[in-house]
Amino acid sequence: MRKVSIIGGGLTHFGEHWEISFREMVAEAGAKALHDSKIEGKDIQAIYGGCMASGRLLGQEHVGALIADQLGLNPLPSTRCEAACASGGVALRQGIQAIASGMYDVVAVGGVEKMTEVSVEEASLALGGAGDQEWELFNGATFPALYALMAKRHMLEYGTTEEQLALCAVKNHANAVHNEYAQFRSPITLEQAMNASVIASPLKLFDCSPISDGAAVVILAASDVAKKFVDEPVEVIASAQASDSLALTGRETLTSLKATQIAAKDAFKQAKITPKDVDLAEVHDCFTIAEILAIEDLGFFPKGKGGKATEDGETALNSTVSVNTSGGLKACGHPVGATGVKQAVECLWQLQGKAGQRQVKDAEYALSHNVGGSGATAVVHIYKKL
Amino acid sequence: MRKVSIIGGGLTHFGEHWEISFREMVAEAGAKALHDSKIEGKDIQAIYGGCMASGRLLGQEHVGALIADQLGLNPLPSTRCEAACASGGVALRQGIQAIASGMYDVVAVGGVEKMTEVSVEEASLALGGAGDQEWELFNGATFPALYALMAKRHMLEYGTTEEQLALCAVKNHANAVHNEYAQFRSPITLEQAMNASVIASPLKLFDCSPISDGAAVVILAASDVAKKFVDEPVEVIASAQASDSLALTGRETLTSLKATQIAAKDAFKQAKITPKDVDLAEVHDCFTIAEILAIEDLGFFPKGKGGKATEDGETALNSTVSVNTSGGLKACGHPVGATGVKQAVECLWQLQGKAGQRQVKDAEYALSHNVGGSGATAVVHIYKKL
Repeated sequence: MRKVSIIGGGLTHFGEHWEISFREMVAEAGAKALHDSKIEGKDIQAIYGGCMASGRLLGQEHVGALIADQLGLNPLPSTRCEAACASGGVALRQGIQAIASGMYDVVAVGGVEKMTEVSVEEASLALGGAGDQEWELFNGATFPALYALMAKRHMLEYGTTEEQLALCAVKNHANAVHNEYAQFRSPITLEQAMNASVIASPLKLFDCSPISDGAAVVILAASDVAKKFVDEPVEVIASAQASDSLALTGRETLTSLKATQIAAKDAFKQAKITPKDVDLAEVHDCFTIAEILAIEDLGFFPKGKGGKATEDGETALNSTVSVNTSGGLKACGHPVGATGVKQAVECLWQLQGKAGQRQVKDAEYALSHNVGGSGATAVVHIYKKL
Repeated sequence: MRKVSIIGGGLTHFGEHWEISFREMVAEAGAKALHDSKIEGKDIQAIYGGCMASGRLLGQEHVGALIADQLGLNPLPSTRCEAACASGGVALRQGIQAIASGMYDVVAVGGVEKMTEVSVEEASLALGGAGDQEWELFNGATFPALYALMAKRHMLEYGTTEEQLALCAVKNHANAVHNEYAQFRSPITLEQAMNASVIASPLKLFDCSPISDGAAVVILAASDVAKKFVDEPVEVIASAQASDSLALTGRETLTSLKATQIAAKDAFKQAKITPKDVDLAEVHDCFTIAEILAIEDLGFFPKGKGGKATEDGETALNSTVSVNTSGGLKACGHPVGATGVKQAVECLWQLQGKAGQRQVKDAEYALSHNVGGSGATAVVHIYKKL
């Protein structure tokens, strides 16, 4: 298969942006990505965009064409991909396939979501569409409740504690302090996290990622032409995706995301490396329990040991594996369609040594892990400096 | 580039289906497609699904995972693609790229929409999201109004008549009489069409495609393995897509869809044939004026002559080019996400000689043309018997 690299990335600030529209966010991230890639719009041949819920949040579908239009890039083919909170990850994967097919050499992949235009209640209902509307949301199960069920079961089976969950958030806030694009650059203490309001027991306020606005863009190029544009492209050495039942009720277990395990196994096989080789991982911490599940299901730690590993600092910056150096969904923010692409941008900049005070030393391999809903879609990419 | 063929297809009846759910429609079309392809679920390696507005119509996003789940095919990777009414067309294109990339040999591509669960007003607003929400829908311009503007201008510039528009619908109803999957199997007369209620002048009731429920699935296979499964696969010899501004106000002209022209030019170049070689075309007749624009922009007739060609019977079954043998969006129905895939199924069955009383004689080349919104996305595929 033809190999594909990332040659540049661009982000808007993640946060609550009443002053900038959906389409303006796309344009900002796109312009920055072009600059970072040292290319011009005319070099791009196709566009893929990840966006989950613009229809419900903004009344706007057909986001692919909107992106091409706003970037001044029509008539380029432009396609929106959706897999709930993994929309960015699947868009990235389509961009990779488009180049691998030989159809294009250079492709832009964007992700965007504008979530703060509606009330928190409306946003929660829109996000509920990531789960099973008929079997879960209709009966009142919103996402904090679904992940709380997983947390409760993990605590019962493996002795994971509320403190260990909270420590994921404490670490991610500490990382986000050094990320200029992050929604929350304020460090938090374990005490603050433990004393915060309960959202869905055992998950408290700081166990939950926020509602955010933001956009992210990466530029992909065939590896055989990537160095024409930049000196340090980063090759995508694995792209894997798996599905599971939409509703929790259809799962084999509540303490693993099987889709993550299957996608990770496939990805490590493609990359010909093991989890031990990974220096940094951007994992899908929509809730703190999701980070615990991820670091176990990706193979960084044995099942049931993710909480202890977090407590022991094994996921902190420049430890066993640096997890969520960007601040993760928790502290960098979670504009759902943008998240999977933002993870790729963080991996790119880390492998290029451009991550400033949150830089992972001698980073050679990076991994991104993007989950849709409560685990019905998982997308895993692995990157290496070309 | 690795070549890709269609080995089978399946459809639900298109219509108003209160008795069958969104997910059941997918399962029905999927099971029929497997049967038609003589394969089993275990032969499929990935799934792409086209769906426009399940979020607004049903509260359900994350349709890719839902499809995999409902078909009993998880953990296969399953991705939803959206480009408004061209969602099926772009999903087909992603499936083709996925096989062309070498990542998979056999892929299922589905399209589905369930539109009759909400009121006509709510459905119209959801469909309005295919255009520019801020610049068009917010100001009251729904789709009949947008296409009425195009029709008025075409009538002014080229002398196209309301009768010529109506004759597209008369022809498409005549074709649908012979299609067991069609929503409307009743022939209509020119007089009936001309005397129908005005929706947005000059468009009357029979100038507009209906609101429909339905699902369509095709099975794709690499051409080098396609004949292992079926005797008569149909090769996709061109796959092209182009974009234009989302809002009509950004267009160079109202009397052509530039995205169609660009995609068609690219497609004919890929296929190494000319419009004259095409025996049948499934074109995007969301409104009768859209069929006139399509047969001109695809190159079957000169600009401005589409109305006259229709009046002269040049688009009827077994004439110059058989247009919308399925009945088109007008009479077969238009469950938006399913339409682009249904067009591919019709082309497949026609080229295989399985189209019964609507069979185009000695059909060698078929073309499908799927449009998003008022023309901001156009997707063109060309097919030939392998």
